[in-house]
Amino acid sequence: MGSIVTDLPHPFDPLSLAEIETAINIVKKAHGQVFFNVVSLQEPRKAEMTAWLANPETTPRPKRFADVVVIAPGGKVYDGLVDLAEAKITKWDLLDGEQPIITMEELQLVEHVVRKDPKVIEQCIISGVAPEDMHKVYCDPWTIGYDERFGNKVRLQQALIYYRPDIDNCQYQYPLDFCPIYDADKGEIIAIDIPKVRRPLSKAPPMDYHPTAVEARGGYRTDLKPINITQPEGVSFKLTGREIEWQNWKFHIGFNYREGIVLNNITFNDKGTVRPIFYRLSLAEMVVPYGNPEAPHHRKHALDQGEYGAGYMTNSLSLGCDCKGSIHYMDAEFPTRDGGLRTIKNAICIHEEDAGILFKHSDFRDDSVIVTRGRKLIIQQIFTAANYEYVVAWVFHQDGTIAPEIKLTGILNTYAMLEDEDTKGWGTQVYPGVNAHNHQHLFCLRIDANIDGPNNTVFVNDAVPSEAPVGSPENFYGNGFYNKRTKLVTEGEAMTDYNGATSRAWEIANTNKLNPYSKKPVSYKLVSREVPGLMPKEGSLVWKRAAFARHAVHVTKYRDDELWPAGKHVPQTSGEPSRGITEWIGDGTTSIDNADIVLWHTFGVTHFPSPEDFPVMPAEPMMLLLRPRNFFAGNPVMDVPPSYASTPSQILAGKQGVLDATDKLSTLAFANGNGASCCKSNGFNGTH
Amino acid sequence: MGSIVTDLPHPFDPLSLAEIETAINIVKKAHGQVFFNVVSLQEPRKAEMTAWLANPETTPRPKRFADVVVIAPGGKVYDGLVDLAEAKITKWDLLDGEQPIITMEELQLVEHVVRKDPKVIEQCIISGVAPEDMHKVYCDPWTIGYDERFGNKVRLQQALIYYRPDIDNCQYQYPLDFCPIYDADKGEIIAIDIPKVRRPLSKAPPMDYHPTAVEARGGYRTDLKPINITQPEGVSFKLTGREIEWQNWKFHIGFNYREGIVLNNITFNDKGTVRPIFYRLSLAEMVVPYGNPEAPHHRKHALDQGEYGAGYMTNSLSLGCDCKGSIHYMDAEFPTRDGGLRTIKNAICIHEEDAGILFKHSDFRDDSVIVTRGRKLIIQQIFTAANYEYVVAWVFHQDGTIAPEIKLTGILNTYAMLEDEDTKGWGTQVYPGVNAHNHQHLFCLRIDANIDGPNNTVFVNDAVPSEAPVGSPENFYGNGFYNKRTKLVTEGEAMTDYNGATSRAWEIANTNKLNPYSKKPVSYKLVSREVPGLMPKEGSLVWKRAAFARHAVHVTKYRDDELWPAGKHVPQTSGEPSRGITEWIGDGTTSIDNADIVLWHTFGVTHFPSPEDFPVMPAEPMMLLLRPRNFFAGNPVMDVPPSYASTPSQILAGKQGVLDATDKLSTLAFANGNGASCCKSNGFNGTH
Repeated sequence: MGSIVTDLPHPFDPLSLAEIETAINIVKKAHGQVFFNVVSLQEPRKAEMTAWLANPETTPRPKRFADVVVIAPGGKVYDGLVDLAEAKITKWDLLDGEQPIITMEELQLVEHVVRKDPKVIEQCIISGVAPEDMHKVYCDPWTIGYDERFGNKVRLQQALIYYRPDIDNCQYQYPLDFCPIYDADKGEIIAIDIPKVRRPLSKAPPMDYHPTAVEARGGYRTDLKPINITQPEGVSFKLTGREIEWQNWKFHIGFNYREGIVLNNITFNDKGTVRPIFYRLSLAEMVVPYGNPEAPHHRKHALDQGEYGAGYMTNSLSLGCDCKGSIHYMDAEFPTRDGGLRTIKNAICIHEEDAGILFKHSDFRDDSVIVTRGRKLIIQQIFTAANYEYVVAWVFHQDGTIAPEIKLTGILNTYAMLEDEDTKGWGTQVYPGVNAHNHQHLFCLRIDANIDGPNNTVFVNDAVPSEAPVGSPENFYGNGFYNKRTKLVTEGEAMTDYNGATSRAWEIANTNKLNPYSKKPVSYKLVSREVPGLMPKEGSLVWKRAAFARHAVHVTKYRDDELWPAGKHVPQTSGEPSRGITEWIGDGTTSIDNADIVLWHTFGVTHFPSPEDFPVMPAEPMMLLLRPRNFFAGNPVMDVPPSYASTPSQILAGKQGVLDATDKLSTLAFANGNGASCCKSNGFNGTH
Repeated sequence: MGSIVTDLPHPFDPLSLAEIETAINIVKKAHGQVFFNVVSLQEPRKAEMTAWLANPETTPRPKRFADVVVIAPGGKVYDGLVDLAEAKITKWDLLDGEQPIITMEELQLVEHVVRKDPKVIEQCIISGVAPEDMHKVYCDPWTIGYDERFGNKVRLQQALIYYRPDIDNCQYQYPLDFCPIYDADKGEIIAIDIPKVRRPLSKAPPMDYHPTAVEARGGYRTDLKPINITQPEGVSFKLTGREIEWQNWKFHIGFNYREGIVLNNITFNDKGTVRPIFYRLSLAEMVVPYGNPEAPHHRKHALDQGEYGAGYMTNSLSLGCDCKGSIHYMDAEFPTRDGGLRTIKNAICIHEEDAGILFKHSDFRDDSVIVTRGRKLIIQQIFTAANYEYVVAWVFHQDGTIAPEIKLTGILNTYAMLEDEDTKGWGTQVYPGVNAHNHQHLFCLRIDANIDGPNNTVFVNDAVPSEAPVGSPENFYGNGFYNKRTKLVTEGEAMTDYNGATSRAWEIANTNKLNPYSKKPVSYKLVSREVPGLMPKEGSLVWKRAAFARHAVHVTKYRDDELWPAGKHVPQTSGEPSRGITEWIGDGTTSIDNADIVLWHTFGVTHFPSPEDFPVMPAEPMMLLLRPRNFFAGNPVMDVPPSYASTPSQILAGKQGVLDATDKLSTLAFANGNGASCCKSNGFNGTH
């Protein structure tokens, strides 16, 4: 599992600006001026890549291809491939009834068209906007999702429309009640959805969170003293190109327009043996269904990654704001829509944090003790999907655990309401005139497993009581319980749901290799507890379009290019038939037993808004674990230096020889003479 | 909700050393030499205390009483009360068939008796211990739990017995296969449980985690660079006696032998209005049932708090080891068994940590942005229950959230096994000859609610789809869903279980007060996702003894002295009838609607051991949230100073006037010239 240092890009590296430019030029030469929705690395074919990773010196390096999606004049969509070395287009497919991802530039256009459209102006006036104030009208353009009136041959956006009395006001407190529909090919508003009940523009005073507003309300609190986090000797990780090494971990950090961060070829050095764990990890798709069934709110179910791109929407991060300590950044490089280039500086931040106690034990007999602090490595991006912010952190622990963590912050999507209007349970009045609808945030984690090799098997793990009744010889006192393991043999069987009652987990095992002590297959366990069911009902539009969210887990046999479970081109899919994962699974008969498999895990939160979330939401975290179980032959972190360690014999010898590497920078909060030297006794006067 | 500064103890303060001594002297004078199992504050009667808290200047201060439990000669157990001011015993009840908590000193005695007992020596020799090596035999004495052969009139411990070839070896790798039973009154071994299948002492080489062992295996890793955490201006909290104020929070920090940390009178200053939230929070009980049904392993189901005490077993914490930064400590003060005094220095640590992003939002139009970092306050203790360590942290967030967090570390309880013995699914061989049995860690969080006053109501909250079918006018597109709220009217109805499918939460509401915007009752929501069911079956010994663990939630009407849900005197309860919560609930008809209520929440983990957990366990965290919902009229943290804030008008003005309080101590990991000044653009060349 090596790699050689060279000036050539690593096959997993995103396209460089030069490569993007090359691809654009080749396409322009062949097809003239088009709009570039995608120019991105086509990831190397796995068979070829695996061979190269196993033996990079002698195996041919996988060639670089650009995946290109363009919109040509007349709204014609082409999905192509460019061989960068050969400078030739190897695929150029005209799509019919498929809409590629919407770029930020396409989104930006809508607001300007909306402001000038006479019918929109008419509706604004009805709502209470002065005609001269149309520059104060804003809109968050969303793909239309799917609207059966228009289908998917015309490229459409719905404009969620708001008003800002002042440019610095948070617009989400002044929603307008109608919804213009924008035709991207024509650059025109082609329809406006107007509700039966009209809800005039709110006259509530603004409730802003910007400094001027806070100052006007009495100013910032002044009683927070600084916490300084510094790393005077630098960081504990090492980077070679985009390959990172840290605490026995090694992996490649990629990035694309769609998923944002992609981690490839994740290995762990287990006492000198480099063991593969995951071939690829990413957040592959998400869906945010809103729960108000009144049209057109049913169209609010953002598949943000497929529709807008977690890469395209990613923030440029900044030192000391988004992370503290000693940070390494990586940029992201993309085409612009018209075939230029753009760089998002600091799209990824990489840093370490203290992780509290890694392990501790005291012997109650004598107060001998060991206490060792842990460290974590965080690979993070933040993307802004119009109102919401998603902070996505890939957290690596020293003990072999990977803990993907997402924090939700930003602003609620809101809709207008009348004073004392009944929200009918579909939403909450979070501020006068502001109805925040119920919604879910469901994310699909794609786990391309490689647990000690490509052939893996997934088992459902359920904690269950012994079947034997209380009083029976097998379970006389009734306390027997065990881990019930159910093998998932086919793709069909693997469509499984969470079960809170059994603390269900999914075990990704390599049944070809047993732990030397437990004699159980080496495995990583998916431990995930934020697993709400999909609230939209079976047969609903969301259920059809976001099929990956029907179950907590799907497992598929690995096939190249099966990356995104709602399909490659997500805007305006009807869900009939469902794209992506349901197509791949088909009749469900494909075996996934001891095969190269991909596990798709949908997790997230169901959010019933409340006034605490307004006008900006305190971050709400969710986290899951990929934990080694029966993978190592013992605790893999015993060699992390302890802060303090004393043994019984050292206690007997008056603490001679104890290891004291206590952090000397920590201090007592108050100089009250309450000493705190390490590891005092339990208060008895004996010789404990 | 004030309190006056005085030299008198706060009524919630634990007994001081002087008060403990006073109580002991009064008891000794009246009853001669006895063993003191408990001398602890009897908490003030709530009615009296509430009156005093409301008006401390004019209301009589609640009197100080010592709750005293002793064992007199002949094994007679007395449960008494001492009025400290009046110096008199006001209650002195002889208990029959009840055993008080086991002290650390009682535990310490057993090992010495075991080593000298001829029958134990005989069994050790059979196991393979040389007769001259009896000093290498150790035991972890546990209360016997309940054994029907002996009942509860004799005070018993079971000695889980181990061998250490060397004093510094971790004993848990050399379990012996038999179990001596110790009579605490006689100070003798009265029986030995000997298994049918004998398992001789393991001859596997030791696998230790102490420095000498790590050095012998190649030494500690050397690639971890320090992370320094300092608070040069001190901490942001203030203490008056044991009352802490931090970021609008104010509460009293108590501590007792049983629960350890107790937080009382938790209030939040909401823009000048001090709002009560919880009268009292604590971990009130726990149970660790093991899943091997073969006797005598069924007796392994530690109710650690009731049987040994999370206070009595608490660690003396140390600066820079257990926490980093600027720490305040509080000691714990207890009697010794023979009527002396002991102090556990630094039993509680209090510190702040950076909490990452508190909120962030960018406007995708122009890159105007606000990013604000959060802070948390942590009140922590660590207790060692023989093999396991429990790190209990009460984490307060600025946004009104309280997040109790428990980390498990330490060492697995282990039992002997033959080479290649079938563990039958009840355990795992974690090392040759070492069988670690399946177990659960179930904790009972006691929430004495006071949401804007004492009269509160609990609702189950379930996220459910609209009942209307897809295609019906009410739910045409099928996306409708809502928060189904079910009021728990009686104690009987309130025995409720977790439901992962509906992301069930419990809402503690004050139905007498509505949120001004949402018009919903002000509430705190219990969001808890680590909620395994009790694995021991209905009717089992554990099910009977630890009745609180039968359901995720119980709710009772507040009654003084109903503190500990498995009963006050837990060792050797038979569970027939169940003590504690089932007694209090009785026929379940008591109304809890708009009443002074206590919510009992059982949460935790089910643990199937694996070799990664051996010989010492990397910390495994679990966390739950108590979140304000419809409690505040808006985001309560908008006045936390941001790291950086720019508004659209400031962006238009070339970033003039932006608020830049970026942490200047953060640095780039590598001096590669990749600048990172705050809040760059999204890479377009326009005037965004």
